[in-house]
Amino acid sequence: MTSVKDVARLAGVSLMTVSRALNNPEKLSPETYQRVRSAIDELQFVPSLSARRIRGDNLQTRTIGVFALDTATTPFAVELLLSIEQTAQQAGWNVFILNLLSNPPTDQNVDLMLSHRPDGLIFSTMGLREVTIPQRLKSKPLVLANCVADDSSLVSYVPDDETGQYRALHHAFSQGYRRPLFINLPKKSLAWKIRQAGMQRACQAFGLATGELLQYDLSEHDAYGETAAILERHMIDGRPQFDILICGNDRIAFCAYQLLLGRGLKIPGDVAVLGYDNMIGISELFIPALTTVQLPYYEIGRNAARYLIDGLEVSGAQPVDCPLVVRESL
Amino acid sequence: MTSVKDVARLAGVSLMTVSRALNNPEKLSPETYQRVRSAIDELQFVPSLSARRIRGDNLQTRTIGVFALDTATTPFAVELLLSIEQTAQQAGWNVFILNLLSNPPTDQNVDLMLSHRPDGLIFSTMGLREVTIPQRLKSKPLVLANCVADDSSLVSYVPDDETGQYRALHHAFSQGYRRPLFINLPKKSLAWKIRQAGMQRACQAFGLATGELLQYDLSEHDAYGETAAILERHMIDGRPQFDILICGNDRIAFCAYQLLLGRGLKIPGDVAVLGYDNMIGISELFIPALTTVQLPYYEIGRNAARYLIDGLEVSGAQPVDCPLVVRESL
Repeated sequence: MTSVKDVARLAGVSLMTVSRALNNPEKLSPETYQRVRSAIDELQFVPSLSARRIRGDNLQTRTIGVFALDTATTPFAVELLLSIEQTAQQAGWNVFILNLLSNPPTDQNVDLMLSHRPDGLIFSTMGLREVTIPQRLKSKPLVLANCVADDSSLVSYVPDDETGQYRALHHAFSQGYRRPLFINLPKKSLAWKIRQAGMQRACQAFGLATGELLQYDLSEHDAYGETAAILERHMIDGRPQFDILICGNDRIAFCAYQLLLGRGLKIPGDVAVLGYDNMIGISELFIPALTTVQLPYYEIGRNAARYLIDGLEVSGAQPVDCPLVVRESL
Repeated sequence: MTSVKDVARLAGVSLMTVSRALNNPEKLSPETYQRVRSAIDELQFVPSLSARRIRGDNLQTRTIGVFALDTATTPFAVELLLSIEQTAQQAGWNVFILNLLSNPPTDQNVDLMLSHRPDGLIFSTMGLREVTIPQRLKSKPLVLANCVADDSSLVSYVPDDETGQYRALHHAFSQGYRRPLFINLPKKSLAWKIRQAGMQRACQAFGLATGELLQYDLSEHDAYGETAAILERHMIDGRPQFDILICGNDRIAFCAYQLLLGRGLKIPGDVAVLGYDNMIGISELFIPALTTVQLPYYEIGRNAARYLIDGLEVSGAQPVDCPLVVRESL
């Protein structure tokens, strides 16, 4: 197997220079760096990260292994992986990702992850949920992103949905809306209960009786057909019997937009709409632009990566702020 | 460092039994497997994949390294990664992913990928584009997914956009539509020219003069504001001067839906809409459901993985069929 010595010999430089080319190229002149790189290319030399780490060539190069669960079913959370990558890169760390097709991970998933010898682990899910963390993973620095574990001592960055929902409704009620119609996430979703608490706090602040609110919980995450039936039930002679529609996510809002616009109603003139998620790739398509709560995927990814990189001392669930994005729909 | 011998000793089994537990657990009784796993857990033993491969413990366990470029800007292509994962899993292979933040990959990206010692490489992009493949990566079995390289001998699975566009327009013209308005992808995108060829073929089949068609190319991928202006220009007294809107992607179609519905027009009664992409997470939100061309992300991922797993003998670009998904919008 080609060694670093072969590279040094071919390039006519010292071992130290090859090491610098691999780890701190900014310390070399462009010419020297290019000479080493050419030798590496010619010999098809593959530096071993773990070997470099053992030799202590570069204490800066650390690797984060990321388990990613549910990526494909919730494509909008890709910002979480992007921010882990960007945060790591800025700190001189590397990232690799293993997709999980099921929770908990199989023994083979865990074997594969550990065989790559990561310095720290992020366990991420694309929709907020509870996960099971195998004991063997807990031997490494570990942090959860957008999920919570059965073991509540584990560090976990999650959206602060209580404050997010409270803030959005406080904004809506401050605009004068008083007859909200809610189409919520399914009751079994983790976010449902948390957001109800925020909703109740906002209603109390404005003297609205929560028992009298028009509230519907979707039966399934993808049951958007139900949105049409719920809206239908609260229209009389084509006029909505509510002044604002509060949606559990932006996809519900998107269906509602088409149904309301198709009936000749103006948003927000005839009826206002409030979303939740601010999904990448979607949120910019609403006409008029949607006021919504932002799920802080980018911040969650950044915080999780920084936890490992900086070795932060926190424990348990860490709520991450969900900003209100005020646009034109209310 | 804990070795396989330590595990065997603690579990009271042979080295062969430990090897089987790691590689072919189905060959062991559940009790024996559990005894070995407990020993592995207790000793926090980490099997090294590369060591296993060198020892020939299990020729079935191979690893695919995936470069993923542009994931975050085009979240809808996650099915590509999902299908690579599922295809690999079914064949007893493993997958790990490295995100790229830029093209071409940096030397550090390449070092990191090769240091994980993959048996084969997939270079994937989320939107069809041309990429530059560093020479060092070509020493491995390599396949491109949803992109083409400057080196045209490389195997590359790409959407068959020519046939996709042809088939969709042939379907539309067969329904009797004859006054299409096109809002195309930006002219600089790779898909633009390919789809124009399909469009011209369909127009010829129905005797439509392509020079007289209403065609607009968006100036930027995200310039959806232009959609409103283009539609406005082709309405007289609130009536569209076209019978079908042909969209370069489903996001343009989504903007158009709201603009058309907001003017009291019925889809497809007053005007039909044809999309392109069939984006996961989006395509099911259209009311009425959108007829569109499917970008075959899942098939592309599967073909790329099978190319490596089966050692297929093909070369150059391999077009993958883009099916027409007929729904209710025309």
